[in-house]
Amino acid sequence: MANSALALWPIPRNMTSGSTALKLDHGFNIEVDVQQAPSDLHDAVQQAQKYLENDKLGRLVVGRGSNDSTAISGAKSVKKLKLSLEDGASVKSITDESRAKFEDRIEGYKLSIPADGSDATLVANSTLGLYRGLTTFGQIWYTYGQDTYTLEAPFDIEDSPAYPYRGLGLDTARNYFPVENILRTIDAMSWVKINTFHWHITDSQSWPLELSDYPELAQKGAYTSSQVYSEKDVQDVIAYAGARGIDVMLEIDTPGHTSVIGNAYPDYVACQNEAPWATYANEPPAGQLRFPLEEVQNFTAGLLSSIAKQVPGNYFSTGGDELNEKCYTDDPVTSQYLNSTGTTLNDALDQFTKVTHAPLVAMGKTPVVWEEMVLNYNLTSLSNDTIVMTWISSADAAAVADKGFRIVQAPSDYFYLDCGGGGWVGDNPKGNSWCDPFKTWQYAYTYDPLANLTATQAALVLGGEQILWTEQSGPENLEPVVWPRAASSAEVFWSAAQPSGQPLNATEALPRLHDVRYRMVQRGLNAINLQPQWCALRPHECDLYS
Amino acid sequence: MANSALALWPIPRNMTSGSTALKLDHGFNIEVDVQQAPSDLHDAVQQAQKYLENDKLGRLVVGRGSNDSTAISGAKSVKKLKLSLEDGASVKSITDESRAKFEDRIEGYKLSIPADGSDATLVANSTLGLYRGLTTFGQIWYTYGQDTYTLEAPFDIEDSPAYPYRGLGLDTARNYFPVENILRTIDAMSWVKINTFHWHITDSQSWPLELSDYPELAQKGAYTSSQVYSEKDVQDVIAYAGARGIDVMLEIDTPGHTSVIGNAYPDYVACQNEAPWATYANEPPAGQLRFPLEEVQNFTAGLLSSIAKQVPGNYFSTGGDELNEKCYTDDPVTSQYLNSTGTTLNDALDQFTKVTHAPLVAMGKTPVVWEEMVLNYNLTSLSNDTIVMTWISSADAAAVADKGFRIVQAPSDYFYLDCGGGGWVGDNPKGNSWCDPFKTWQYAYTYDPLANLTATQAALVLGGEQILWTEQSGPENLEPVVWPRAASSAEVFWSAAQPSGQPLNATEALPRLHDVRYRMVQRGLNAINLQPQWCALRPHECDLYS
Repeated sequence: MANSALALWPIPRNMTSGSTALKLDHGFNIEVDVQQAPSDLHDAVQQAQKYLENDKLGRLVVGRGSNDSTAISGAKSVKKLKLSLEDGASVKSITDESRAKFEDRIEGYKLSIPADGSDATLVANSTLGLYRGLTTFGQIWYTYGQDTYTLEAPFDIEDSPAYPYRGLGLDTARNYFPVENILRTIDAMSWVKINTFHWHITDSQSWPLELSDYPELAQKGAYTSSQVYSEKDVQDVIAYAGARGIDVMLEIDTPGHTSVIGNAYPDYVACQNEAPWATYANEPPAGQLRFPLEEVQNFTAGLLSSIAKQVPGNYFSTGGDELNEKCYTDDPVTSQYLNSTGTTLNDALDQFTKVTHAPLVAMGKTPVVWEEMVLNYNLTSLSNDTIVMTWISSADAAAVADKGFRIVQAPSDYFYLDCGGGGWVGDNPKGNSWCDPFKTWQYAYTYDPLANLTATQAALVLGGEQILWTEQSGPENLEPVVWPRAASSAEVFWSAAQPSGQPLNATEALPRLHDVRYRMVQRGLNAINLQPQWCALRPHECDLYS
Repeated sequence: MANSALALWPIPRNMTSGSTALKLDHGFNIEVDVQQAPSDLHDAVQQAQKYLENDKLGRLVVGRGSNDSTAISGAKSVKKLKLSLEDGASVKSITDESRAKFEDRIEGYKLSIPADGSDATLVANSTLGLYRGLTTFGQIWYTYGQDTYTLEAPFDIEDSPAYPYRGLGLDTARNYFPVENILRTIDAMSWVKINTFHWHITDSQSWPLELSDYPELAQKGAYTSSQVYSEKDVQDVIAYAGARGIDVMLEIDTPGHTSVIGNAYPDYVACQNEAPWATYANEPPAGQLRFPLEEVQNFTAGLLSSIAKQVPGNYFSTGGDELNEKCYTDDPVTSQYLNSTGTTLNDALDQFTKVTHAPLVAMGKTPVVWEEMVLNYNLTSLSNDTIVMTWISSADAAAVADKGFRIVQAPSDYFYLDCGGGGWVGDNPKGNSWCDPFKTWQYAYTYDPLANLTATQAALVLGGEQILWTEQSGPENLEPVVWPRAASSAEVFWSAAQPSGQPLNATEALPRLHDVRYRMVQRGLNAINLQPQWCALRPHECDLYS
């Protein structure tokens, strides 16, 4: 017998399955038994039907299902999946539910698929939960010939995520990605129940974000006039994501990583394009907001609130990583200001944070910052509500927790998808980079979000994400460099453990991840092979000690 | 002023260029002044015209050429490129010339592009040389608005390759690649003057090669009936390659890497699918030809000659890597045969080589083998004419040369394109692999084909190749994992040095390689970014010490 429920990813937290063959009836349909169901739930049902019809994934065994004919021909057919909400659940759109605060976000569902052909049922406390359950339902079926079937009915699944934040990060500033690439990425995220698209939309290299309030930023800061996201593009991405249960968390990285702002506002940026860049920045070009200056603080507050008001989600990242202090000490304007006012850089940063976060908080947003903002500085203006993202090391979570902040984990040593391709900086013939080696899916999968944390610290972990910085990426390799690797953290933060209670285990996971990958390819995504097809069709026969 | 002739790759061995703007006339055409010119030369000219019309590559500077308007508007226009052969050159097709023996292969050309608008000329001693010159011509031009232009006329180029073998290797057995992916790869190879497609077409995992003489091999050995190359497919690939100046060197790896042959011929294969695989093979599944047996020798000889007769080129690889001896000592059939006849494995291998190479030599082919065949065994039957490919280490070339064989260098420590993505073997959570780390383009580019070789040894070096083993690859990532990295060896083995005589230098090369990559993308190939676009538009501003 094959592994249980081979295709499910992330693996449900509670489930039983059997060993009875069951077909989808040729007239199979999904019935929405929800009063005044929102239109995006109907759209999701239609999309789920399409996947069921078009996936045509052969089972990953030798013969791709040809040995299943007998079992299939004797199988009962399920004619219907009925969706309903629990009594008393409020009826909101998937989109709205996907943007709820973490403590109010409801993603759980119950899915039952009897083996006798009677109706399958999907019940949840929210339309978002129904969406997650539809995603699970879509992973159960294989195609052989004209039949869509499973060999493992009945199914009884009761599932909900271990962590409320399961993200994927993408940098669209080092290199630009057309909207269509982002939408495809969002599709793939939804397939593995990732719920946050962390969009690092601007950086020192380019400002691809068109803003009607600040038109010169993109005019002078986008790579070209065609490499921009219009305000409508951003809305389209947000709407597309919302309908797929995904919140968009925009990041406008400040006060570092802002060289390009100087193209439009030269007075607001210190050390712009100064050489040698390595003295003033972790990567070229140098340039940072002169954040101690009151006009820069006000400008940034205006800019951030202008952008934040276009984003419906509750979470908005203001960045805060890799601030280079020498940029300011060598900058006459900034250093003169600091000296003349007797202000320390820390106090100026505290004031900058206060001024720039205030409008966000006023509009109900929760600020998100990188770990340096709490580990390298003492910012009394940071509200306790602030969420802190770790990136420098997986070891930093404890220190962040000790400051009392909630944590999203994006540790470079496990989760940076760009590492290991060699250094991209020029005149570096050895081609090493700071974050070698490549972070394999297996290694990312071993990440323990609670490692070395006390219970008090652990309670602050919201989840985490894998992230692609795009110095060496573009539309050309986005899909193969991200998929199926980014499914690792999706399972780490949804499932946290196997249904048996055993820890997640890459050896157990590999056949399921093959299935994820092959289904992604069936859906037109360029997800890479994890092994020779010979191995994909023979679970565990390519294990090291088999 | 921009770098000289920024886009040329591989850099011509002798060239001068100027700083005068020159346009392609809107009626520009390429005239073939060759008596009875072969049809593939006309096709190549048509293709070159298409690239000139469609590339529309903006110059890689800030503004993508917008600052060139004044220079362009005052520029002369060149109306014609005239192709001709040197007096006395024989007129053969590009296809035929691309299959000549290395010592007879003529790839040199002279290209002259005056700055005054008078006709450009391309002269060579062969149609293949004209093809190479057309490729160079196509790299010279940028587009801004309606104009196709260069800022660096006049050009005077006299070019020919330093080494006769410049290859790219692709394994289509671990995972399958549709023909269309192979053809795109051949296109890209031709753009950087690679002249050999080393097609590792079969291996232990699958036998995707349909053979009318041996139909059961693919019937029982292909992954599925749609994952096969028909004999016509192979001819199509060969023809497509030939028209692009590329010879196809097929590899049928024997006697190891042949597990799959046992699906059709179980009596001919030892230790097929034996566990633990690691005892019997470097990767799963185990299985090797019982080469000491006379019937296996005769079978293999028949198989190889049946395939080789379908391949017009002079070079044919019979493999010979990673032979596992324990597979035979534990195999009752083989060990009984060896014991009863008092034959050593070495002598049996010698006999196998004699029997299997004989029909190849008889049909005029030169056998090609992996290094173990001359470094691990003493095979008196190997003709001196045999070409030996190194792969285990760049340090092995000297030892091969000391045996007197000509060498093609594919050292894994520099040229394996698959390394660094983490281990693919299952139950290996750390995910390390034997050939970590990733072989960057920069590192491959530092490869010195003559390092530590005496002049006598060096004279035996035919060239080399980068190669993609496809455990973790497929159509989904073929282009981004190969390009533009495989351009590194293309320049190492064509140019060998800068036109100035200085050694090749990755710092000098980077802006040119950006150009190669951006042009590849314009031609629809998914070649990856080497740096943020900010850097690509600002040569050397992202160098480590700038």
